[in-house]
Amino acid sequence: MRILGIDPGLRHMGWGVIETEGSRLRHIANGVCHSEGDDLGARLLSLHTQLGAVLTDHAPHAAAIEQTFVNKDGAGTLKLGQARGVAMLALAQAGLIIGEYAPNAVKKTVVGVGHADKRQVAHMVRVQLPGVELAGPDAADALAIAICHAHHGAGSGLGAALARARA
Amino acid sequence: MRILGIDPGLRHMGWGVIETEGSRLRHIANGVCHSEGDDLGARLLSLHTQLGAVLTDHAPHAAAIEQTFVNKDGAGTLKLGQARGVAMLALAQAGLIIGEYAPNAVKKTVVGVGHADKRQVAHMVRVQLPGVELAGPDAADALAIAICHAHHGAGSGLGAALARARA
Repeated sequence: MRILGIDPGLRHMGWGVIETEGSRLRHIANGVCHSEGDDLGARLLSLHTQLGAVLTDHAPHAAAIEQTFVNKDGAGTLKLGQARGVAMLALAQAGLIIGEYAPNAVKKTVVGVGHADKRQVAHMVRVQLPGVELAGPDAADALAIAICHAHHGAGSGLGAALARARA
Repeated sequence: MRILGIDPGLRHMGWGVIETEGSRLRHIANGVCHSEGDDLGARLLSLHTQLGAVLTDHAPHAAAIEQTFVNKDGAGTLKLGQARGVAMLALAQAGLIIGEYAPNAVKKTVVGVGHADKRQVAHMVRVQLPGVELAGPDAADALAIAICHAHHGAGSGLGAALARARA
């Protein structure tokens, strides 16, 4: 089963695709969509187009996205929400059921602790996906989300619900 | 010139279309998109599909959307952002330049004061668009946003920028 993970963001949106073969994981691809354009509409359109190309190129069977609630800055949360909404729309348009995982749940699954920093996440992604070349920290986070979804039973609503409950 | 106004929201998204003939305004249509579906992806997809139909049916030349920053509740701001992102994407996909207006700027333009309540907004929308039948408060707000955009020079980036500066 091929799983797409998304680390949402308006300026930089990380993505990563892995494949599960039984209990083994294999890296397929990862990258970062950079939003282009002068205004917000153009930037969202640019992200949607780039994600559409990722979905066409890699045809995932399941998808997962980071569930980010906490942000002290309302304007920042709104920006993140707009990018996240466009990403979820692209996934839903591709007919994918979307798993949502809190950052702590992702870190707990991939690193073993909920308060790991970005370097630890990138390190454990490299350990679990031997030979992977990371396009950057956002791409590493996206692969971590895909790994988390694989561990929690990708494609099963129960798996995602359990992961949320554990977070 | 035909102007579409959008009052964004995840559960209910108001929309309203007006036409400007010189300095006169005429009501064309208004309504509310209700998101349907069990999960967030499906709800965003439902909003995007409904907005697409509005854009096809009424073929606006310009669009404006409420710019809502302030919300003490991070989860609520994220939900609003997701819906707003999908709405802005639909407008950008239709090739529209999008005006953004703070709620106070809309009220100041339509009612005359920045702290008007929903009933006052609906009342002044009825006064400025004689014979209009409002589909609800969200639709009234959307028409108010379209009226605001008409007054600030719809389609002119300068008009929208000025309105934001005044807000």
